[in-house]
Amino acid sequence: MPSVMPTTFAARHAMSTTTSLKSRTSRVTRVASVQRTETRAKAKAKELAREDARRRGPLEKSNLFSAKYVPFSGDSNETYSLDEVIYRSKSGGLLDVQHDMEALAIYPPEYWKALFDERVGKTTWPYGSGVWSKKEWVLPGIGDEDIVSMFEGNSNLFWAERYGREYLKMSDLWVKQCGNSHTGSFKDLGMTALVSQVNRMRKQGKPLSAVGCASTGDTSAALSAYAAAAGIPSIVFLPADKISVAQLVQPIANGALVLSIDTDFDGCMRLIREVTAELPIYLANSLNSLRLEGQKTAAIEILQQFNWEVPDYVIIPGGNLGNVYAFFKGFSMCKELGLVDRLPRIVVAQAHNANPLYRAYKNGWDTFAPVKAESTFASAIQIGDPVSIDRAIYALTACNGIVEEATEEEMMDAAAEADLTGMFNCPHTGVALAALKKLRAAQVIGPTDRTVVVSTAHGLKFTHSKVAYHEKRLEGLTSKYANPPVQVKEDFGAVMDILAKRLKTT
Amino acid sequence: MPSVMPTTFAARHAMSTTTSLKSRTSRVTRVASVQRTETRAKAKAKELAREDARRRGPLEKSNLFSAKYVPFSGDSNETYSLDEVIYRSKSGGLLDVQHDMEALAIYPPEYWKALFDERVGKTTWPYGSGVWSKKEWVLPGIGDEDIVSMFEGNSNLFWAERYGREYLKMSDLWVKQCGNSHTGSFKDLGMTALVSQVNRMRKQGKPLSAVGCASTGDTSAALSAYAAAAGIPSIVFLPADKISVAQLVQPIANGALVLSIDTDFDGCMRLIREVTAELPIYLANSLNSLRLEGQKTAAIEILQQFNWEVPDYVIIPGGNLGNVYAFFKGFSMCKELGLVDRLPRIVVAQAHNANPLYRAYKNGWDTFAPVKAESTFASAIQIGDPVSIDRAIYALTACNGIVEEATEEEMMDAAAEADLTGMFNCPHTGVALAALKKLRAAQVIGPTDRTVVVSTAHGLKFTHSKVAYHEKRLEGLTSKYANPPVQVKEDFGAVMDILAKRLKTT
Repeated sequence: MPSVMPTTFAARHAMSTTTSLKSRTSRVTRVASVQRTETRAKAKAKELAREDARRRGPLEKSNLFSAKYVPFSGDSNETYSLDEVIYRSKSGGLLDVQHDMEALAIYPPEYWKALFDERVGKTTWPYGSGVWSKKEWVLPGIGDEDIVSMFEGNSNLFWAERYGREYLKMSDLWVKQCGNSHTGSFKDLGMTALVSQVNRMRKQGKPLSAVGCASTGDTSAALSAYAAAAGIPSIVFLPADKISVAQLVQPIANGALVLSIDTDFDGCMRLIREVTAELPIYLANSLNSLRLEGQKTAAIEILQQFNWEVPDYVIIPGGNLGNVYAFFKGFSMCKELGLVDRLPRIVVAQAHNANPLYRAYKNGWDTFAPVKAESTFASAIQIGDPVSIDRAIYALTACNGIVEEATEEEMMDAAAEADLTGMFNCPHTGVALAALKKLRAAQVIGPTDRTVVVSTAHGLKFTHSKVAYHEKRLEGLTSKYANPPVQVKEDFGAVMDILAKRLKTT
Repeated sequence: MPSVMPTTFAARHAMSTTTSLKSRTSRVTRVASVQRTETRAKAKAKELAREDARRRGPLEKSNLFSAKYVPFSGDSNETYSLDEVIYRSKSGGLLDVQHDMEALAIYPPEYWKALFDERVGKTTWPYGSGVWSKKEWVLPGIGDEDIVSMFEGNSNLFWAERYGREYLKMSDLWVKQCGNSHTGSFKDLGMTALVSQVNRMRKQGKPLSAVGCASTGDTSAALSAYAAAAGIPSIVFLPADKISVAQLVQPIANGALVLSIDTDFDGCMRLIREVTAELPIYLANSLNSLRLEGQKTAAIEILQQFNWEVPDYVIIPGGNLGNVYAFFKGFSMCKELGLVDRLPRIVVAQAHNANPLYRAYKNGWDTFAPVKAESTFASAIQIGDPVSIDRAIYALTACNGIVEEATEEEMMDAAAEADLTGMFNCPHTGVALAALKKLRAAQVIGPTDRTVVVSTAHGLKFTHSKVAYHEKRLEGLTSKYANPPVQVKEDFGAVMDILAKRLKTT
């Protein structure tokens, strides 16, 4: 075995690039060589900051930090405590959680980096969680004892080495596996923040008898799991006959009261708003800005996993678009506090069948018009009138973002193609991968651009469409990468023939 | 917010116990108070060991460490290099990977603890993985560049606070969520070790054209995913008409050659043995001892997550029983190298319909006889003649282990009951939970005994039986905890009536 220095993911990648790819460029080499030649003085300073973080302890000065609700539009002086039950500003607009950035800036960037690095994966409650390792940036005022956590985050930033090399001629492609989590989707990141805050408010004596949402998928699963762990009743509103028990088995198993209502989805939304105006049920739907505070930690975690090097592109599937703003906010806070010096370009990937943001982008943000979303395998982003449209346009404008779209065939093929290299992609991740392919073909994304595709859910949540793909049962699709089982009789020779052919050992 | 010291999971638990549970005992309090009153000298020594681990770097002396195959029975002097393709000893018995324990013992326990703690979750390739953070104890001779890793391990040790308190009168109950992983089961832990070793041997020029297994479930999923990431062809042998595409969608998606053979499972096993004798296909089945080296890290990780306090009981679902020995080996190595001072009692939980180990245990290990396994929802442990029977009996004898069983109804009810407190348990985890309930009822496990239930797969891999449970479609079962959706018409009053009743706010 060679005498190997411990190498970072990035350095390992660069080393491999050096030896195996002709297309390596100076930038990639630079990343590695900078890391290798880091001066002793710098290393020493880093070590001192690390020591400092350890000595002081994270919470000693936490009373410095605070956050509050403000209108997202910024056009009024309204502010609200995070302990209030409030979802919208007086004008009916979105809210945003605003942190006291001056207080956070008291600590230098090296301190925050060292603190976050020190906490990752550790058993110190609740700081081992990828969300709560950034607690001072998420919900600084909450007590550790109020937090409801399932050790969320810290998910694999998968180096898509084979997929990049063999299918896209890319050397620096990564897939952030946010679906590798307790309920199988990135919604856990936001729900730990929301349910923890509700837990706190209940302990304060606020009359919140339950949490509720109208959702057909990942949101209801995450909400009901976190609520169940905390002993908070949860309620899910759904249109009757539109949803199967299989789609709902998570909230059902977690003891949510699942109401199957004889109406459509809009009817459910209307009813839950009426009900929550009457009963003390906390509404956990998409406009809730607490959830974004948890979700933004995925962006911070990506930077951390690259040792605070900024990727060039981050591609995110977009439906209601809260996650787009959440990622932007995570990146922005890191830039504002000096942990990094630039923002990545965010790419939002939409299903062609539900592409209002793509259309607005194509007309230069001149106008935005909701669309009627058509059916898509990427069911979680089948949304024609996104709640967070203003948040998303703000984010994309600020980071020179891009919007791309994918047809049903493109998303299913891209997911299946990437699966061949060890992933197991849900259709939403397929949308992001298909967008990547298009931007790569158009040379917008270059062969050595460091690119992160955000996988929002585990493929195990979407086996239905994946099975149909491989059985070639998807109407109008050729299922280019279908890989059905091969039937063979119980005969040594017959088996050997097939194997020899496949393994080309004849 | 109170001024809170960073508390460990254990201390948090103890604190909460102190304030909320009357049943707290001196032992639990002791854990917390020992941690609180740790002397400065001890803390300083720990810090120095930590510094030492960081300064020296993990690999500087790694050429000291080695491992080799020996017969598990220990009754011959045979040894084989891990770079050989060999599955059994000359006498046809099982092999074991034997580490040079004297070399590992050169480093004191505090060094290993600090090293493992330092690596957890970090980006230094491949040491952030829960398996490879213990690389010197797993495959010390492999180069970092040969490792095929998906950042496995580091899974949530979920404090089952509500389930313990409300259903079992237990204050110190934990569920190790091994299924929260890349392919959704604990098999990833072993497969990263096996596929990495195959990857190394292929690079050495060994003519291994593929990896293969006969498996209907989690093993084939893990094998094909890791093989796909490494670009190694994979082959799965299966009995025709016994398995649906849904059960196989993971290997299919990962590009495995799935052979559906017109025979039964035994016929598949026979054919794959014949084929691998003829073709250079590496056999990744259950007797393979490399896989156990990866799996054993789950035990080490549990100790680590308790800050190296040993739990009293660890409950593991058992079929082929390799995992039982793997857990034992992980615990034993920690004891032998002084990281802990005792072993936990391992409890193996079997399905009543496939319970040969339970029967042998009940007759005092006098005799072991294979059984014909009947159908069980816990399909991964539906095994009548376990490959690792000798390994398991050895382990259980050495740690004063216990074997318990669960009927179909008991396992499904236990899984559903625990789901109500925020989990989403597969039937195998249900078997372990049902065993816990019995041992708790029999007062074998006491109210404050620190107990860990090992969850071997994500519930998302077994939604079929969970859906059927909640739809009350399981023949012969009452589905005691079924929670079907409630139908209601689109009417504010009707919805309010149901909610008011459920929330008891009338």
